[in-house]
Amino acid sequence: MIDYKSLVWEGLLDLSAYVPGKPVKELERELGIKNIVKLASNENPYGASPKALAAIKEYEKEITRYPIGDSFYLREEIAAFHNVDIDNIVCGAGSDEIIQLLYMAFLTSDTHALAPSPSFSEYELLARGLKSSCRWVETNEDFSINFENLLNAVNAKTRFIMLANPNNPTGTMFSSTEFISFMDRLPENVLVVLDEAYIEFAEGDFPDAVNLMKKYNNLMTMRTFSKAYGLASIRCGYLVADKECISLINRIRPPFNVNAAAQIICAEAIKDQEHIKNVVVLNKKGKEYIYNEVEKLGLEYVKTHANFMLIKVGDGKKVFDEMLKLGVIVRFLGGKRLQEYIRVSIGTEQENQVFINALKKVLNK
Amino acid sequence: MIDYKSLVWEGLLDLSAYVPGKPVKELERELGIKNIVKLASNENPYGASPKALAAIKEYEKEITRYPIGDSFYLREEIAAFHNVDIDNIVCGAGSDEIIQLLYMAFLTSDTHALAPSPSFSEYELLARGLKSSCRWVETNEDFSINFENLLNAVNAKTRFIMLANPNNPTGTMFSSTEFISFMDRLPENVLVVLDEAYIEFAEGDFPDAVNLMKKYNNLMTMRTFSKAYGLASIRCGYLVADKECISLINRIRPPFNVNAAAQIICAEAIKDQEHIKNVVVLNKKGKEYIYNEVEKLGLEYVKTHANFMLIKVGDGKKVFDEMLKLGVIVRFLGGKRLQEYIRVSIGTEQENQVFINALKKVLNK
Repeated sequence: MIDYKSLVWEGLLDLSAYVPGKPVKELERELGIKNIVKLASNENPYGASPKALAAIKEYEKEITRYPIGDSFYLREEIAAFHNVDIDNIVCGAGSDEIIQLLYMAFLTSDTHALAPSPSFSEYELLARGLKSSCRWVETNEDFSINFENLLNAVNAKTRFIMLANPNNPTGTMFSSTEFISFMDRLPENVLVVLDEAYIEFAEGDFPDAVNLMKKYNNLMTMRTFSKAYGLASIRCGYLVADKECISLINRIRPPFNVNAAAQIICAEAIKDQEHIKNVVVLNKKGKEYIYNEVEKLGLEYVKTHANFMLIKVGDGKKVFDEMLKLGVIVRFLGGKRLQEYIRVSIGTEQENQVFINALKKVLNK
Repeated sequence: MIDYKSLVWEGLLDLSAYVPGKPVKELERELGIKNIVKLASNENPYGASPKALAAIKEYEKEITRYPIGDSFYLREEIAAFHNVDIDNIVCGAGSDEIIQLLYMAFLTSDTHALAPSPSFSEYELLARGLKSSCRWVETNEDFSINFENLLNAVNAKTRFIMLANPNNPTGTMFSSTEFISFMDRLPENVLVVLDEAYIEFAEGDFPDAVNLMKKYNNLMTMRTFSKAYGLASIRCGYLVADKECISLINRIRPPFNVNAAAQIICAEAIKDQEHIKNVVVLNKKGKEYIYNEVEKLGLEYVKTHANFMLIKVGDGKKVFDEMLKLGVIVRFLGGKRLQEYIRVSIGTEQENQVFINALKKVLNK
């Protein structure tokens, strides 16, 4: 018997897998109950555009064939939407794969990424899986990004800064003024990845990333079909970046990285911005309902620019566990600053009511 | 303007992307013709199991939600099919991702993989994309694998041997006797990946990989839903291996690596082995038709155990180009030993006739 552990590189054994939000089916299996409400993964509870869903018929005709290798027709639609060239775009199996490809191309064990903390844990996990690292830089007390801290953390080995705007899991957002001032002070050989997974939900003044890329050649922006577009199952995200950067990524991109259903359905989804507008309006209503109810309970929370929010509940892990037993899946993220919080995705009107009722029950309010 | 090329690691600039078989849509766009026959990517021309396709309805209900992270229910079906434990299985977005995950876990820039040549080019491209390497070991004159050469090439830095059986692009196969004798002589810390992408089409004596894993703990086997199962669009493959090996891979596997359509549809596909049997019978008929016609044309070819075959046509690149103009997409693989060959996937009766007619035209026969 060989010892597989002896054959991996040093450091792999320190890694543990990302823990996703608990799937409904899994909780059903564990508890033997139905009617579970999942508000754990920031999915869109209103679903995808009906026009996009109709394209599944087109997909069925193509099911036997390999997908288009370079997602050509999907990239055409994305390019039209952002008013950029098709060669400014690469598609991936979710933002996860985009991050992985960026890291594969530009990171080494000698260089690193930086990201504000708390933020999306995959920024670090994916770097470590590739024998590199992502260093976390604390945000301010209110979870807003401390750009001064970020700039201070940059050194000659800093290859990436990963900036989610709005940020996950905090829902906070930075303004275009803050961002431009940051970019002006950052060395231009540090690549800035603006992760706009939740941008559709943002209100007010935020950076117009695609436009700013004309000025800042080291800036790139990442989007996903998993959140506002309601297509988390399909695994599709994309990067808009400098053409040279895209062409370098294509050298290491696996040949059929985006499945055909994703290519065909997302190409329709991005054309239906009316649907996105409706989703955003509904999300806002849900957000205000939860704000209001949580205030009545006398709890603190973080104002959000996304489709989820952090609520300070005391013992976050305990509240998470108790809510699971009531069939409501939220997220406990832990770490040194989120012990007292749960993160809840904003659901449908009815799901939000179920959530608030469960929260009251768990907190004896 | 920053120079992105200056920011990548040494070696990336030597890489070029994998060249997939030309998609039908692309050739239609280029030539402005319809009724194109694609026999380039070893897809199943009879399509997927109707029972599997029916599951698309189940998928539609789940489209908004993230997929099950660990492909639990699909792995249950795969485990039942192979009569192994669910913890012996990891699923990936095609075999490509499985290879990538194996390399990410076990390869370093200091270690390497070995593979017979010619074989699947991704064995090398994926290793190089991860700053490692795959060394090619020549096959015999008749393209059968030279196990002696392989054993001689092994050294202390050899981590993997990648063995496709049947092999792509040659269609050749090795016997269980040859393989067992090889395994007995191989150091047990060299991991052997038996890539069985085309195994459903194989006839005669070949290694029973899953059974042999009980004896050879360093042996693992890889399967795909892209070939006989007729689901190339969906991106799904899997690895059966030692539990410790699987658990190490899971530490670096991206959280939602297999899309939900793949999980739901492939779980039905693997249960419908009747469909696979029918596909294999039809493939065999097509194979014999092409053998017969090619013999009549006085051309040499390589007997195949898969759903494609190599035919010696003279100037392979020229024949490939000429056939494209006639709307028939085959594959020219080139390299030092395949200059005179084209690889053709075995299609439907009608597609095979179109292919033979086009071949006659191009060769003036």
